[in-house]
Amino acid sequence: MSSILSIVLLGTGNVAQQLFDVLHPLPDATIAQVYGRNTQGLNYFRERCAVCTNADAIQSADLYIIVVSDTAIPEVSQLLQKKKGLVAHTSGSVPMEALNAGRKAVFYPLQTFTKGRTVNFKEIPICLEVERNEDAALMEGLAQKLSEKVVWITSAQRKKLHMSAVIVNNFANHCYQMASEICEAEQLPFELLHPLIQETAAKILDVPPKEAQTGPARRNDVLTQQEHLELLKNPLHKKIYQLLSESITQQYEKKL
Amino acid sequence: MSSILSIVLLGTGNVAQQLFDVLHPLPDATIAQVYGRNTQGLNYFRERCAVCTNADAIQSADLYIIVVSDTAIPEVSQLLQKKKGLVAHTSGSVPMEALNAGRKAVFYPLQTFTKGRTVNFKEIPICLEVERNEDAALMEGLAQKLSEKVVWITSAQRKKLHMSAVIVNNFANHCYQMASEICEAEQLPFELLHPLIQETAAKILDVPPKEAQTGPARRNDVLTQQEHLELLKNPLHKKIYQLLSESITQQYEKKL
Repeated sequence: MSSILSIVLLGTGNVAQQLFDVLHPLPDATIAQVYGRNTQGLNYFRERCAVCTNADAIQSADLYIIVVSDTAIPEVSQLLQKKKGLVAHTSGSVPMEALNAGRKAVFYPLQTFTKGRTVNFKEIPICLEVERNEDAALMEGLAQKLSEKVVWITSAQRKKLHMSAVIVNNFANHCYQMASEICEAEQLPFELLHPLIQETAAKILDVPPKEAQTGPARRNDVLTQQEHLELLKNPLHKKIYQLLSESITQQYEKKL
Repeated sequence: MSSILSIVLLGTGNVAQQLFDVLHPLPDATIAQVYGRNTQGLNYFRERCAVCTNADAIQSADLYIIVVSDTAIPEVSQLLQKKKGLVAHTSGSVPMEALNAGRKAVFYPLQTFTKGRTVNFKEIPICLEVERNEDAALMEGLAQKLSEKVVWITSAQRKKLHMSAVIVNNFANHCYQMASEICEAEQLPFELLHPLIQETAAKILDVPPKEAQTGPARRNDVLTQQEHLELLKNPLHKKIYQLLSESITQQYEKKL
């Protein structure tokens, strides 16, 4: 390994772009190349580094970072089977073992990446895993240059962390979505709920969610819950309301 | 009505305190009195205004604001039956009609109030309702002094808005809670999810929740969902995962 870490990025999507943007300015790392399956996807990168669509043209590097969809990871890693460098994927749910590579690693930034929204990488937890202890320093050195929160977790832990991420991200967002539907039907602007949504999330930074809970289910106010259930028209949303309320109430029932 | 609006506040809890703190400094309104059922609850207020525990001692005022639990609203309003002033409650779910008063109104600040957390009232939507049109100006005048977002909605709309608030606040918080449980069992710090929770909420300010959705349910990734269901131990959480995933997937299914 040279004193400047050479990196090849495999993948051209939104996460690859955001990762590129934080890796590219690092003084002691260099993105030697970006590999993508089609020319168009590479447009984002080609002015700032070498690009290629031909797997045979992939350069030798200290580190290969695979930033593709979960299902494509084994296949893309296969392109690197003869490489001596460390091969890392960036997925929350794929085990490190899925990599077809000599030296395996995981570099999982725990955040939702949206096209057009820049996130502050310094605050994003980066979850690391390596197969061989001697590769730990390389991964940790790089991760610490990007983020203030670097943690080592196993594939099994990462799977549960990813599931937790699905719950706080996708499920909370679906709650927002259900509410926006109700507002729309009632010709109420969804924006009325914006401050509440922000405060609900912000509160978590100071108060554990179990303590932060309020509302009809928490205080076992069955009357209000029944009124709400009558108002809900979407049968799935009705069931969700019931089940989440039941789960909240159960949480606060006194244990015998 | 004098040029300075006189207000009596009925209730001493957390919301009453926060409301007091924003009403008290207003130059053209004065809190004449705070009524509470017990002496201790009044300690927060007594240095800054008159207080009373005896309903007979409640002063005459332009406006009475009832800030008590939902079920206590009819009973507390009854104390004001002979008063000439306007009587407003502050609840999301109680109809205006529940007030036993000559002149009825609702003043519903749409936010979650937590002891020890100060919220920026300017950003909180205040939802108004009055029985008699001639009382609209008084309510709107006051609300606009506190908030930049004042809306008129009916009791029926308010009930649905309150239900939406339960969904984005209590249910999203329960998602945080489920995730925190998973993290705890896995000895992972829940704080790893903080940035994701904040970003998920912040995204809503720019992108409608339906567009913001991502994840295994949205892309109908059945394999990841199955893996997660196997990992979940709490049977209620398992059902919640299934149902929310089903609801998300259904949202994005192509309509025939």
